[in-house]
Amino acid sequence: MIYHAKPVANLIAALNKLPGVGPKTAQRLAFHLLAVSREEAVNLAQAIVEAKDKVRHCSVCGDLTEEDPCFLCRNESRDRSILCVVESPKDVIALEKTREFKGLYHVLGGVISPMDGIGPEDLRIRELLHRLKQGDVKEVVIATNPNVEGEATSMYLAKLLEPLGVKTTRIAHGLPVGSELEYADEITLTRAFLGRREI
Amino acid sequence: MIYHAKPVANLIAALNKLPGVGPKTAQRLAFHLLAVSREEAVNLAQAIVEAKDKVRHCSVCGDLTEEDPCFLCRNESRDRSILCVVESPKDVIALEKTREFKGLYHVLGGVISPMDGIGPEDLRIRELLHRLKQGDVKEVVIATNPNVEGEATSMYLAKLLEPLGVKTTRIAHGLPVGSELEYADEITLTRAFLGRREI
Repeated sequence: MIYHAKPVANLIAALNKLPGVGPKTAQRLAFHLLAVSREEAVNLAQAIVEAKDKVRHCSVCGDLTEEDPCFLCRNESRDRSILCVVESPKDVIALEKTREFKGLYHVLGGVISPMDGIGPEDLRIRELLHRLKQGDVKEVVIATNPNVEGEATSMYLAKLLEPLGVKTTRIAHGLPVGSELEYADEITLTRAFLGRREI
Repeated sequence: MIYHAKPVANLIAALNKLPGVGPKTAQRLAFHLLAVSREEAVNLAQAIVEAKDKVRHCSVCGDLTEEDPCFLCRNESRDRSILCVVESPKDVIALEKTREFKGLYHVLGGVISPMDGIGPEDLRIRELLHRLKQGDVKEVVIATNPNVEGEATSMYLAKLLEPLGVKTTRIAHGLPVGSELEYADEITLTRAFLGRREI
């Protein structure tokens, strides 16, 4: 039985692949897109393709950026002696919103997770060591998520960085354990930052 | 303060316009699209533009279709003596899924809603009268949503069709009043269909 016209069915199938979008929501979004002006729908389509084509990883910190190096790495007013290590670009956004941290970031691009077959060699750890060898960085703040994989990655990094003589800290467990950094409110995140302790 | 690279910010803004998608969800969807293969992202973008360009309203029933007249109107095995009047194309989908109704549809493209400035002249009522005048239709089942606007539209149509000598029925209030047809389960919808009564 065919319920939808083919282009509508294709659109619903494509929307259904987005995280958190089930068949009903996909249908609702599809009908919404069919109802809005062509301009608005095309605008979304173009935004997707443009983001895909223009956005790359910063060769220094690994964050998402249009220009390389990124806005933050190029910013001369940032404190180059402190480096915050995070899992993903959205964690950079979350931390930037606190306005508490004035240093630079290093985006790992994931966490060590044997269940998903992700080992240290799949993360941007080599690039991190390369940055630290340049000697500017005095402190590394590890801000991976406070869950099992994030903690494991944090421990791994702390051991790895120990011989380099760089102060290594971990953001405080002001964050509820098991949650995700992306969803923390700014105040909790700020406190976690201020309460960081040496590993 | 710039948090996102411009193409990422544009994508988040475009996704944020979708119904039920707030800033956080928009950001999550954007990062998802940046993480998947270029092919998958482009596929979604193309599906949006294609649906927008290829899908039109059927000149007979008003449903969404790629070819005109639509799949259902062209189907010779459907009962041409019974016409089901619905608000929108998603209601056709919902009713088709029950496999209970074998007649044809007429999509109004909305309901009478003075609050939103939508009057009878904004709906496909002229087209409905034109279809009824051809004489094939013996019964009109009004399946607008069981809420205030849907009921008002149903009453309006019943009065309008009275002089035409066509039997006019309303799907039963097996549906919870105040809810929306789109979200009803198949069994409730089937019962509502079987329990239809003359207005």
